[in-house]
Amino acid sequence: MAQKIKLAIVGATGAVGQEMMKILWERKFPISELICLADPREAGQRLIYGNEEVVVKAAREDEFANADIALFAVNTEISQQLAPAANRHNCVVIDNSYAFRLDKEVPLVVPEVNPEDIAEHKGIISNPNCSTIILTVALNPIHQAVGLERVIVSTYQAVSGAGVAGLNELKKQVEAVHNNEEIKTEVFQYQIAFNLIPHIDSFVEEQYTKEEMKLVWETRKIMHAPELKIAATAVRVPVYRSHSESVNLQTKKPLTAEAARNILSQAPGIIVQDDPDKNIYPMPLYTSLKDEVFVGRIRKDISCDQGIAFWIAADQIRKGAATNAIQIAEIVVKENLY
Amino acid sequence: MAQKIKLAIVGATGAVGQEMMKILWERKFPISELICLADPREAGQRLIYGNEEVVVKAAREDEFANADIALFAVNTEISQQLAPAANRHNCVVIDNSYAFRLDKEVPLVVPEVNPEDIAEHKGIISNPNCSTIILTVALNPIHQAVGLERVIVSTYQAVSGAGVAGLNELKKQVEAVHNNEEIKTEVFQYQIAFNLIPHIDSFVEEQYTKEEMKLVWETRKIMHAPELKIAATAVRVPVYRSHSESVNLQTKKPLTAEAARNILSQAPGIIVQDDPDKNIYPMPLYTSLKDEVFVGRIRKDISCDQGIAFWIAADQIRKGAATNAIQIAEIVVKENLY
Repeated sequence: MAQKIKLAIVGATGAVGQEMMKILWERKFPISELICLADPREAGQRLIYGNEEVVVKAAREDEFANADIALFAVNTEISQQLAPAANRHNCVVIDNSYAFRLDKEVPLVVPEVNPEDIAEHKGIISNPNCSTIILTVALNPIHQAVGLERVIVSTYQAVSGAGVAGLNELKKQVEAVHNNEEIKTEVFQYQIAFNLIPHIDSFVEEQYTKEEMKLVWETRKIMHAPELKIAATAVRVPVYRSHSESVNLQTKKPLTAEAARNILSQAPGIIVQDDPDKNIYPMPLYTSLKDEVFVGRIRKDISCDQGIAFWIAADQIRKGAATNAIQIAEIVVKENLY
Repeated sequence: MAQKIKLAIVGATGAVGQEMMKILWERKFPISELICLADPREAGQRLIYGNEEVVVKAAREDEFANADIALFAVNTEISQQLAPAANRHNCVVIDNSYAFRLDKEVPLVVPEVNPEDIAEHKGIISNPNCSTIILTVALNPIHQAVGLERVIVSTYQAVSGAGVAGLNELKKQVEAVHNNEEIKTEVFQYQIAFNLIPHIDSFVEEQYTKEEMKLVWETRKIMHAPELKIAATAVRVPVYRSHSESVNLQTKKPLTAEAARNILSQAPGIIVQDDPDKNIYPMPLYTSLKDEVFVGRIRKDISCDQGIAFWIAADQIRKGAATNAIQIAEIVVKENLY
């Protein structure tokens, strides 16, 4: 990567934007200029990038004139408004929102799964939903080896999925419970401290939430498996960071648990933690701040002939969002796709 | 229930024993004498029963000479030792431990599912595993209507499953996290505050835990469905009370989500909470201290032809343990089976 990049981050002050700045520094992303953009009300804030400070600017169209690549970590509405503006200035957008994910003209990419799709981009590359990234990293090696017939997933999603506000809400509610004070609920539908909420994003079809349907729609697109049968239940849990998922899958060809473990052990982006006798299995507390997807509890699904069950945990702010976007950006740079 | 019963509670000082005393009073169980038994070190403690106090006695064999029925809320080892002793004094045992659950001579009963099995008892009736009780209350009405082919369940189990010690451990760990103090772990394998542990009870076969296999073995026995295909993943979550379960099932005959909702609405022991547009679905925080199994998120399993998915929550100390045992005792009394 001889070429140095003028890189913009849109939403630099948010949970994902902040993590992006850490990861860019850690991975020595080749930056000649870092442009931190955010809501105009946040302009003037100073953010840390390695040992430098960067002053936040208002996210306005003309800022993209000076950028080669922009990492978007904002909501769907702002992405829809600003991504075409960035493209008009020949700035390639890697967008973390839902805005363009299902657009046929926009690649939806998990670098461990479909890096080749990046070359097809027309200015925008979408970063998938957090739970979907984590799931596809674990599903794809098995799909490549024996074919997937059906996937059932129940998620255990951290409050960080709702950004800094979600993290603060859990913290405040836990303190209120322990001090016997009134519980305030602003971010989530109900108290999340010491509770579970089987409702993430809005209800869209057949009583499924959009979060659940993203796991269906996006997994099919990323894995180029439009016929893959998937059903999901998405549940918010009182964990700060890292999403977890309980997965049952049926394969087209037979696969033993041992063979599945070997496939997953050799797959990119995965760390297998699977030694029950030593109490070794993935847990969200210990996978936080890591970039890999942790897979364990790999075993035969004893309710069907050709089934495997496993348990996943991964940091949703990193691999589920920021790291995945930066991995895409690295390929864009390396293959001169900007 | 004209007959009044001399009732013993073995393990009266524990979380389940204490809940039993509350529920016996609430339900006006016909007691002529309440005998509270516990570890000899706890003898002399005074427990509240309604507006009375009962002094705890050491759980010794001769105490059963004066009891018609004994509710056991102790561990497997103590049940194995004391239940035959109680039987020798013609005291019928309703046992909450795992000790006799799979014994062919011992009925394993959920009163909403297989009350008729109680009449077959030879001195001991087993109370099932908490997650299994909750699951079978919801599964059986559908099994009776259209037949069940396969069940996949992922659990979200509260710390109360580990008794008072589990409740205290979560509380202390949360305080330690917020005060930035050292986290102590005694009850669970790892920190449970703000974490998930995919490991409940010991690992027994094919990398499944005993808790997961109880959901298989006990569900089959209770529902008289020895061929039913079940796979479970059991996960401990940082919730104080009430277990939750994400369930995907395949039925032998077709069943719409609407029909499933109707069946569950009319089934005994179930409250359907299922109106997503109004954010109505079961949550463990709000099902605690209740006796029913709450079912919601009832929908077609879009990954198969004849599938239904739903989400359950129920208080594991009450319906998952104490209430179920007392419901059994009520039938024993009513039908003169002691």
